[in-house]
Amino acid sequence: MNYDSYFLHALAQLRDERRYRVFADLERIAGRYPRAIWHSPAGPRSVVIWCSNDYLAMGQHPKVIGAMVETAIRMGTGAGGTRNIAGTSHPLVELERELADLHGKEAALVFTSGYVSNQTGIATIARLMTGCTILSDALNHNSMIEGVRQSGTEKHIWRHNDLGHLEELLKQVEPQRPKLIVFESLYSMDGDVAPINGICDLAKRYDAMTYCDEVHAVGLYGSRGGGITERAGAAHRVDVIEGTLAKAFGCLGGYIAGDAALIDAVRSYAPGFIFTTALPPPICAAATTAIRHLKSSNGEREQHQRRVARTKAVLRAAELPVMPSETHIIPVLVGDPEYCKEASDLLLTEHGIYIQPINYPTVPRGTERLRITPSPHHDDDMIEALATALIDVWDRLDLPREDRALAQMSA
Amino acid sequence: MNYDSYFLHALAQLRDERRYRVFADLERIAGRYPRAIWHSPAGPRSVVIWCSNDYLAMGQHPKVIGAMVETAIRMGTGAGGTRNIAGTSHPLVELERELADLHGKEAALVFTSGYVSNQTGIATIARLMTGCTILSDALNHNSMIEGVRQSGTEKHIWRHNDLGHLEELLKQVEPQRPKLIVFESLYSMDGDVAPINGICDLAKRYDAMTYCDEVHAVGLYGSRGGGITERAGAAHRVDVIEGTLAKAFGCLGGYIAGDAALIDAVRSYAPGFIFTTALPPPICAAATTAIRHLKSSNGEREQHQRRVARTKAVLRAAELPVMPSETHIIPVLVGDPEYCKEASDLLLTEHGIYIQPINYPTVPRGTERLRITPSPHHDDDMIEALATALIDVWDRLDLPREDRALAQMSA
Ligand SMILES: Cc1ncc(COP(=O)(O)O)c(C=O)c1O
Ligand SMILES: Cc1ncc(COP(=O)(O)O)c(C=O)c1O
Repeated sequence: MNYDSYFLHALAQLRDERRYRVFADLERIAGRYPRAIWHSPAGPRSVVIWCSNDYLAMGQHPKVIGAMVETAIRMGTGAGGTRNIAGTSHPLVELERELADLHGKEAALVFTSGYVSNQTGIATIARLMTGCTILSDALNHNSMIEGVRQSGTEKHIWRHNDLGHLEELLKQVEPQRPKLIVFESLYSMDGDVAPINGICDLAKRYDAMTYCDEVHAVGLYGSRGGGITERAGAAHRVDVIEGTLAKAFGCLGGYIAGDAALIDAVRSYAPGFIFTTALPPPICAAATTAIRHLKSSNGEREQHQRRVARTKAVLRAAELPVMPSETHIIPVLVGDPEYCKEASDLLLTEHGIYIQPINYPTVPRGTERLRITPSPHHDDDMIEALATALIDVWDRLDLPREDRALAQMSA
Repeated sequence: MNYDSYFLHALAQLRDERRYRVFADLERIAGRYPRAIWHSPAGPRSVVIWCSNDYLAMGQHPKVIGAMVETAIRMGTGAGGTRNIAGTSHPLVELERELADLHGKEAALVFTSGYVSNQTGIATIARLMTGCTILSDALNHNSMIEGVRQSGTEKHIWRHNDLGHLEELLKQVEPQRPKLIVFESLYSMDGDVAPINGICDLAKRYDAMTYCDEVHAVGLYGSRGGGITERAGAAHRVDVIEGTLAKAFGCLGGYIAGDAALIDAVRSYAPGFIFTTALPPPICAAATTAIRHLKSSNGEREQHQRRVARTKAVLRAAELPVMPSETHIIPVLVGDPEYCKEASDLLLTEHGIYIQPINYPTVPRGTERLRITPSPHHDDDMIEALATALIDVWDRLDLPREDRALAQMSA
């Protein structure tokens, strides 16, 4: 049997649909973010990154790097085992305490990634509640979808951020069944925000549990960086808050925070938590440092929002098709996978600007986009250069500008 | 609805079965391994760890720590995004090249853990081969079981390491169906080894693909640390080799290595790879350093095997029920979850020796054990102290000694 043919066929299909991805080989330079070195086929080149999810550049903060370095020297590079097999390090225990405090919860549990925390977290919570029904927002992240699927429980999908539809579905579930509402606080491809208090009102009325993914919001919103739930005064109303250590906190790993019994049960039953090596002590220490810093410092968050506002204003003034966004994420619509890839390539090769194309399956077909994420360190000159580059690329590829593009999309 | 009651009930069940786990809060001390600080309820205490999976203590090797420190200072602590979203760092690209070379394969792909590489790797490979049947060893790790389950394809379980049974099952599959045989090279709870060449012979005869988990063998076996497949001269015969960076390489992360087309297809289709933040550059650089070191240095492997042989000899001479093991893993049978936990507690509190209890679901009920993993740094005195402590605990708890215990198990 020609096994390779299966894989070659799968790859050919991606190429046909212009969805084959090439990863840019980048070398970050601490202290010079958002500048990086791109290892291009023709050799190394200096570029400006406009699409990182290290939103506040905490991954290069001297205190955060210092914590990683100090802990690596003192304790070594790895955890050495699963949580149960000698892998529970003191920095990990401290990190979990810090996270519980961040969200005002009794306890928190750390996983190797935000992906794993959603996948095994949702699956385990749902499985432990006999007869559970899950109500899942239509635009939930793949990690939540996989968690729902893995739980094997009944599920209903409610239209994105549509409280009316959610209520309709809640009404249809038998009252005595346990119900779990899963949603994100901030949807990372559009930059829109969930009506968290509205969801909590419904959860209360229909006696449901709530699980909220704050991956793109922790560290960035709320006066202590507790996310959109904190900003909305709703942290205590949401039963489980899930987050990542890999975006605004600049490291790696994910977590859930909630009541002690729930967290302890997930700790005890979740396969994706039990059967894998724990997060290394240096990563835990670095993440704890980032969280603590952002609990007491609002400077990064304020500067971040100012840079975002400026970038949006400059791109809108240039009549680029900036999609509506309430947050720090600035999607610019292309609407075609091939042009999206080409725009990204031109930006990189001609302008030294790195913004990767976002195509299906990350976003629905026809809404392919460039997703721009300014950091506190993107200065006015960089914003001007970005606008100039985008205009040049839009002209060269004859891409639709503001009105036409966005009108088409909402059609 | 009282949602907490579901979780409290689930926890009570574990307590009833004496399977409730308490993680020891440990602080590793680089340069003093296997010594560590145990943050006990009564305050910090010095202990000797006898159950780490940082088998060669590479996690505290000065070169490995140096690579993490140097890279953290130069590039920061995190990757900043998924592989596609600015997360592909130069150290990660180099790590994948190093891993492909280690196993003599065309390409390799890095995941956030060995767990994720199995789960999303097996699921994706099987899904891409229309009509695939998976043949899975009965004692495969949970991450492989979850991968098989997630693939949604037909599966057959063959009796552990039983080539006759595997052949029987292969015969029953229609010849034109793609077949994927998944197994481990070294089973980490018993320390036994798969008949890799025998499996490859069958795979050839029945035209099946092979996928081998080398998590507990990479770095430790083979003249370059390529694992049991290298030692058996079978690396080129196994289609996909999966491994971890978190055990013998002392860091975090997992990978698969194989033909370019297969690796590229998994890269392009595996949700657990696509939708998660990439491994941080400092982790990648540290892992690459560990792999390179162990490619050219046999000293650690030789000393490791000498210490293992000595430990086995001393424990056997003390008539402790050492289960048969061909490798560096030394399971000592207890056969009861409660006594297993108690033995572990006594070792820790009375003797300052940390060996966590291994109970169901990690091993089958009735085979609860202490799983001892000597490193190159466990000296003769430590081995003597271990034997003395175990004898004391066995006497106190009146646990069965060698003959009786092992006879019972094989009955
Ligand atoms: C909404 C959402 N949840 C979870 C994740 C996964 O988090 P992590 O990168 O820590 O695995 C992501 C993306 O990475 C995400 O966008
Ligand atoms: C056989 C086997 N495969 C995979 C894994 C998972 O590897 P990782 O710890 O890197 O997630 C483990 C245990 O951790 C294991 O024992």
